Amino acid sequence: MIGAVEAGGTKFVCAVGDASGQLLSEERFPTTDPQTTLAAMVASLRRQSAATGPLSAIGVGSFGPVELDRTSPHYGYIVRTPKPGWAMTDLAGTLAREFGCPIGFDTDVNAAAIAEHRWGAARDVADLVYVTVGTGIGGGVVLGGKPLHGLLHPEIGHIFPRRHPLDTEFKGTCPFHGDCLEGLAAGPAILARSGASLDRLPDGHPQWEIQADYLGQMCQALVLIVSPRRIIMGGGVMNQTRLLPMIHARLQHWLQGYIDRQDLLGPAGSFIVAPGLGAQAGVLGALALGVAAGGY
Amino acid sequence: MIGAVEAGGTKFVCAVGDASGQLLSEERFPTTDPQTTLAAMVASLRRQSAATGPLSAIGVGSFGPVELDRTSPHYGYIVRTPKPGWAMTDLAGTLAREFGCPIGFDTDVNAAAIAEHRWGAARDVADLVYVTVGTGIGGGVVLGGKPLHGLLHPEIGHIFPRRHPLDTEFKGTCPFHGDCLEGLAAGPAILARSGASLDRLPDGHPQWEIQADYLGQMCQALVLIVSPRRIIMGGGVMNQTRLLPMIHARLQHWLQGYIDRQDLLGPAGSFIVAPGLGAQAGVLGALALGVAAGGY
Repeated sequence: MIGAVEAGGTKFVCAVGDASGQLLSEERFPTTDPQTTLAAMVASLRRQSAATGPLSAIGVGSFGPVELDRTSPHYGYIVRTPKPGWAMTDLAGTLAREFGCPIGFDTDVNAAAIAEHRWGAARDVADLVYVTVGTGIGGGVVLGGKPLHGLLHPEIGHIFPRRHPLDTEFKGTCPFHGDCLEGLAAGPAILARSGASLDRLPDGHPQWEIQADYLGQMCQALVLIVSPRRIIMGGGVMNQTRLLPMIHARLQHWLQGYIDRQDLLGPAGSFIVAPGLGAQAGVLGALALGVAAGGY
Repeated sequence: MIGAVEAGGTKFVCAVGDASGQLLSEERFPTTDPQTTLAAMVASLRRQSAATGPLSAIGVGSFGPVELDRTSPHYGYIVRTPKPGWAMTDLAGTLAREFGCPIGFDTDVNAAAIAEHRWGAARDVADLVYVTVGTGIGGGVVLGGKPLHGLLHPEIGHIFPRRHPLDTEFKGTCPFHGDCLEGLAAGPAILARSGASLDRLPDGHPQWEIQADYLGQMCQALVLIVSPRRIIMGGGVMNQTRLLPMIHARLQHWLQGYIDRQDLLGPAGSFIVAPGLGAQAGVLGALALGVAAGGY
């Protein structure tokens, strides 16, 4: 049995599953302060594993930024976050002390990217980006089947797209950057600019065009910098799947045919896709990290 | 003996060296049409190896875009380039047929990144980007010591930075994109905007500030998308090394402290650096590709 923790900024999902990607049980609870939330996480995994059998490894996909450098004294921590109280929270260490088993640890979006590669919409390609557009914008990168870390890990949400001609006045909602991508195109930005979430705005409302353009610019930067074979786009805002072909069209606009690959130039639907695992990508990503940590 | 070919858009450098990175001989000639240039390349390697000893492998770092997918019938080709006559030129195959030895092949900038990691300014880090700013702008990415390919390979020069407030009118010089990074900040863009190359413009000329900002935006996107541990900046424009601390300052501006790493936040000079191999990064990169292809 493998434990899985999807540590999100608004909710935690704790689950137990097996190495084939089958979840046997799952619990979820809101993210409050670190003490309460970590205690609930430990209790949840204990309760579930009492029913399913002892855990031989646990995987954690966490909101961040997180520390992924194994030589750092803060490995496995959420190191810095605008979320009050959560900076320097030791997630992986807490689980290791409580359960005494190997812990896999990565960003929530790297975890989702791994799960989509292992069990979802990117089983046939080893180079992919998983992007979530919800209360924030984050991206996980898998290259050659392995998650990209480097100095820290990707933080794709904070690049700066060019401002859309229909959106020159809005100041953006990112507390760090104002009008970075997250500040222009995450859920709170849509609400602040247009007064409603995307699903409540009619076809033809400028928000649709603005949204597709900013995310298309993001895809262009991803294509030119990490050269993925597929981009998977999930999160609450992307539940509006009619955005996908609109983003594809804006990617073409910004690339201007420069990357001569049928994967990119062909019809919409194969390069920029919805998650194969739907809303389960996060928790299955955590499970995949646990599977890898356990050596299965 | 290992052969090395730096296949550039304006000149070819052909050399012979050994697996330790020592060059024993070198010749250079202008890039004209493919037939003439490839014949000169073959003749040059034959001439040099007659003196140094037979070649057991050859490495080629090429301008591009190039085909790096070994399953493609066009592997080792320059596939598509604005350079007249050069699209679909079979570089690696020509050398394999002529010399009958293993051929290493990659982009010129991936090659330079590998050389800087092996022998230059990134010997201590395995995750790095090498950027050249000259007649064009290109970037090679090495992660975990290996060059990044993915769908094609990075084409960093064609991302779109935000326009600088002092540079709102200039249309840019990129034939594909107009005012993409290359169209705004490569050598020809500097000349078109400011009437002279950067080394001839006085301190305080707005071109310096504009230039540093666009390249700082590029570094921000690199940090957020591939998370390198170092960015090495070479090429003719970067011979003006006083740009380096200016770019570092603009990177800080665009990151706004979001990535909490001393490597980034510390003083200029350790994260964004000049090539350790200077103008030799390209030919030594080709040599490194040959060394790897030969299995040394």
